[in-house]
Parts: sequence; structure tokens; C-alpha cells
Amino acid sequence: MNIIKGCRITGTGKYLPSQVVTSVELEKELDLPAGWIEKFSGVKERRYAAGETNADMAVHALKQALENADISMEKIDLLISSSVTFDYILPYQAALILKGLSNGRKLNTPSLDINSSCLSFVTAFDVAAGLLDGKKFKNIAIVSSELASTGSDPGDKETCSLFGDGAAAAILTWDNEHQSGLVKSMMKTYPEGFYYSIIRGGGNVYHIKYNPYDPALHSFKMDGKKLLRLAIATVPTYFDEFFNGTDVNIEDIDVIITHQASKAGLGLFKNLYPGLKGVLYRNLETHGNCIAASIPMCLHDTIEKGILKRGQSCLLTGTAAGFAIGSVLIKY
Amino acid sequence: MNIIKGCRITGTGKYLPSQVVTSVELEKELDLPAGWIEKFSGVKERRYAAGETNADMAVHALKQALENADISMEKIDLLISSSVTFDYILPYQAALILKGLSNGRKLNTPSLDINSSCLSFVTAFDVAAGLLDGKKFKNIAIVSSELASTGSDPGDKETCSLFGDGAAAAILTWDNEHQSGLVKSMMKTYPEGFYYSIIRGGGNVYHIKYNPYDPALHSFKMDGKKLLRLAIATVPTYFDEFFNGTDVNIEDIDVIITHQASKAGLGLFKNLYPGLKGVLYRNLETHGNCIAASIPMCLHDTIEKGILKRGQSCLLTGTAAGFAIGSVLIKY
Repeated sequence: MNIIKGCRITGTGKYLPSQVVTSVELEKELDLPAGWIEKFSGVKERRYAAGETNADMAVHALKQALENADISMEKIDLLISSSVTFDYILPYQAALILKGLSNGRKLNTPSLDINSSCLSFVTAFDVAAGLLDGKKFKNIAIVSSELASTGSDPGDKETCSLFGDGAAAAILTWDNEHQSGLVKSMMKTYPEGFYYSIIRGGGNVYHIKYNPYDPALHSFKMDGKKLLRLAIATVPTYFDEFFNGTDVNIEDIDVIITHQASKAGLGLFKNLYPGLKGVLYRNLETHGNCIAASIPMCLHDTIEKGILKRGQSCLLTGTAAGFAIGSVLIKY
Repeated sequence: MNIIKGCRITGTGKYLPSQVVTSVELEKELDLPAGWIEKFSGVKERRYAAGETNADMAVHALKQALENADISMEKIDLLISSSVTFDYILPYQAALILKGLSNGRKLNTPSLDINSSCLSFVTAFDVAAGLLDGKKFKNIAIVSSELASTGSDPGDKETCSLFGDGAAAAILTWDNEHQSGLVKSMMKTYPEGFYYSIIRGGGNVYHIKYNPYDPALHSFKMDGKKLLRLAIATVPTYFDEFFNGTDVNIEDIDVIITHQASKAGLGLFKNLYPGLKGVLYRNLETHGNCIAASIPMCLHDTIEKGILKRGQSCLLTGTAAGFAIGSVLIKY
């Protein structure tokens, strides 16, 4: 594999709130037949924040990533928060995370938020790899922290049992020797699918001033059928284009981490690529869909468990509300 | 001036909603003495959207920028939406803007949102300049579109008369010959000022489920005194560091565009640097503070009016809620 940008994941971190919510409990609460949730969403249990904010969880994950990378925050040249959910509309989330990390220290780290729905971490990774130059940018920290449980709609059985809370982070470090790095990245937007998965309320179109809280308006809604149809129409062509011109096939990748969108989404990928020789890692069963944090959580776990080893190929990929498909192929 | 990355602003665009709201009208509405608003906020008039969404305004500005750059959207390798306000919480704003631009065409442009409060455009410009490589990224479109009028708090006379709506865009093009480009960029976050300017409601901390609409909670609030004190403590040191090692002084820059934060903020900058030889451009009087759109609006106007000419130096700079200071110094 030809590395186009030398960069190394020098550390990752993950934070899960301690509150475990099982699908059995949720079924009782939502008055659903036993086994219904696992059957439809694929999720056995997920974590719900018990007082932690988005920033709290991000700080926990980031501290672990810094520790694993054996680097102090003072050496980080850019902090990127790559999440969908947030603590405040203004200021941006990365500044609050930096505040949480500061703890009396003077940290003036440049910081910004990147958002491309569930692909935010992948996009941030791609941008970070692009910026790393060994001069201005030697180390970049990326953190995705998602708190989805706050505003779920109990009237929407499938989506309200799909999501989980948590955070994950990664430190990306310039690698002058090209031992690790980015092999290829590509993102495509398919805006015809914009309204297929959406939170309608909370922005300017359905402003809170004129639209009081209504779970149907202020929770995640998805037209699963249209979304799946669009995914079927776009994903295979996307991957044909992605692997065109690379010296590797999707079947040969050592570790594939896809966004943990849904049972149907994961099933589609498995059906499209039945001949995968490597590991197709998943945590949907135990974590739920953690929005943009799902991919870095899986990345952390595959590294911690020794599934992803130095020198191996790893594909981070997924679909996102927008609609969008994005991937980074790396040599770890 | 030594160009570190060849890139050229090949086109800009701007959109103002047609609804003009004068401070005289607002004073009547808010029961304020004649002249109060201009005295305190410095704003004579501003535009309020009359039905336009964030995405609508962005599409208008972007179309003009593409036209001025004489380039079609098909040639844009990345679309960045760099704004604070948004139409929906999910999906991200850039996908909706792309949908608005598509108009039957098949546009699968990679897209993402960047947010660093009022500095979002400056940050996006810096990221875009970093990514441009003449291969994967030859042309990047950046657009800031802000709709602040939706949720203003009539009980807060000063801030509710400060903001205006509108959008502006720029096309950044790889310049292999280094005739135009980035000379220096620097951003610093000062998270101790996180709570000095904030919209408390609308995110996860004061979730709409438990916090019904209250203008005091869901509008922009600022502790002007603390903010000004922090700016005085940080801005001069920041610029000393910024210009350290460059072959140009702030006094010699041809065109300086600062964020149109407030009358006090603009006054502070003028007092700190009384010896500027170039143009210190402002539009606060006629546009109000248009959040992240203020800087690209000024950029567009200085180019359109012939104030900023090819080969000249231009500093885009500002402070932002976070608290943060950021700048890009370019040769236009």
C-alpha cells in the first residue's frame, strides 16, 4: 500500500458512561414484546450518560488518548471536536473541551469543530492527515463525544432504542518515515437524501421560539426504506471508485470499521462484500449507534484488543445523514 | 511577504436579505430613546431574513462567488460551510447547501461544516489553504451564512440590536506560481472566557425537553466587561507573536478586515493600533454583527469596491466566542 501522507495514530481513548441500559429494560419501559428491540435495532445494551455532558465525556476519552500516546496536551497543535451533538449552540464544542482539559494549566491550543454527521470523525481524520506537515502541525487530537439519550422520542420505538452515549478520541502524529499513514481517502455527498434522516427541530427552520418541544419534531427521524434504497444505489459504486487505482481490494483489508448505523446498514455492507478476509469489527450490540463516536470507539477497541496491529491496513468508513459516504484507508 | 502556501481567492459572493431594519425603527419597537442603539451598538441598520433560510442565503452567496471565479460547482473539490447558525441540528449544513446548489444536477461534492464561532470563516480559510495541493484539492468553496434575527431577546436591548443576517462566500484556488497565497495563520483559544459570550439553551446542557423557550436562555448573552478585559489581556500579545518572524508589521498591511464584533471591539483594535497605514475596513454600521459572515462580507466588499487589489496584503482577523483569536495573513 502506497502511503500518500505519513501519519500515525499514536494513541486512542474511549469513554462510556457507567449507566448500562439493556434492551430488556427498555422493552418493559416502552411496553414492547420481549426481544423486539434486539430483533429490530440489533442492540442488546447501550450506555446513557448519568450527568456527564458532551464535554465531560470528550475530556475523559481525550485524556486516555493522550496517555496512550504518551504526549501532553501542550504538544497538541490542533484540537478538533468532531461530533453531531453539543453542549451549547455557541461557543463551539472544542473550546469547552479545552476548558475541561485545562484544569488550571494555560492551554491556548487552536481548536475547531468539524461536522459531517456520523462521518465527522472520518472527515476530521482526513482533514488532520491533510494538515499534518511536521512543522506547524506535528500532533492533532480528534475527539467525538455524543449524547443522544437526552432527546429521544419514546413514541419512535426503533430509533429511540438504537442510540447510545459515549466518546472516543485519537491522537494523530506526523510520521516523517511513512511507516504509518493515509493510503486513500474519499468523501461524497448525495444531497438528494438530505431529508431521509434528520432532526427537524432545534435549528432556524423550526426555531424553538415558535416550535415548543415535541419529541416527534426534536428527535432523530429516519425514512429507513428510502435510506436503504439510496445506500444500495450508491455504496457499491462508491467503493468501486474508492479502490480503483489502489493496489489493494476491499477483500484484503485487515480491519474494517464501519459506522454502526443500524442492523440493516451493517447487514447491507456484509451482503455487498461477503468475501472479506479481514476483521469486520462491530459494537452495535453492546454500544448502540453512538453517532460520530461509533467509528473511533471501534478503532480504540480494535487497537486495545490487539485486533489491529502495526503495519496492518484499516478502513474507517461509513454513511451519514446528509446523505454522505466517506472513508479513510490507513496503514496503522 | 513570503508565501507559505500558494492559493488565490478567485471569486467572492455576498447575499443580504432585502428587509432593511433601521435602528430608528428598532428604537420605536423596543421603546428606546432616539439614537440609543447607534450609540451603544454602533449599528445604523441591518438586514433581517424575510423567509430566507441559512441555506438559501448561502446558495445565493455561493452562486455569485462561483460566477465571479468563473468556475462551475462541478470543479469544486470541497464545500465548507463555516457558520454558527444552522437550519437543522442534523444533517450538517453543507449538505443542505449542496442540495440547494444542485437544482437537478448531480453534485456529489465532498462537504463538511467547520465551526469556531465568529472565526469560522477564518478557520475554514486556513484549513482550506492547508488542504489545497493542486491534486486532490484544486478548488475549495467556503460559505458563511448567518441568521441571527430568529431568536433575539427583546429584553436585551444591546445584543438584540447588534446582529444582522446575511451570507458571504469565497472560492479558494490552488496557485502553483505562488502569486497569491497564505503568508501566515495562527489561532489561539483562551477557554477561560468560554462563558463570557454564550447561547445557553438549545444544546444538551439546557435541553429543550426540560427548558422551554425563554429568550434569556435561548438568545446570545455576553458579559461585555469580562470579554473586553480578556481581549485587552490577550490581543496585543497575540499580535506580537503573530508578526514575530514575518517580514511585515501590522501597520504596513494594505487591508485589514476584523470581525465586526461590536463598537467596543472595533474601538479596542483601533486604539491598540493607531498607526495603521492601510485600510481598516468596517461594515458594522450598515450590516450589524453578522457572526461568521461578517469577515467574508467585508472581504467581498473590499474586492468589489477595488479597495483590495491583486498583490496587496490583507489580514483577516477576529475574536470569537470560545474565547478565541484567529488570523490569516494573505497576499491577495
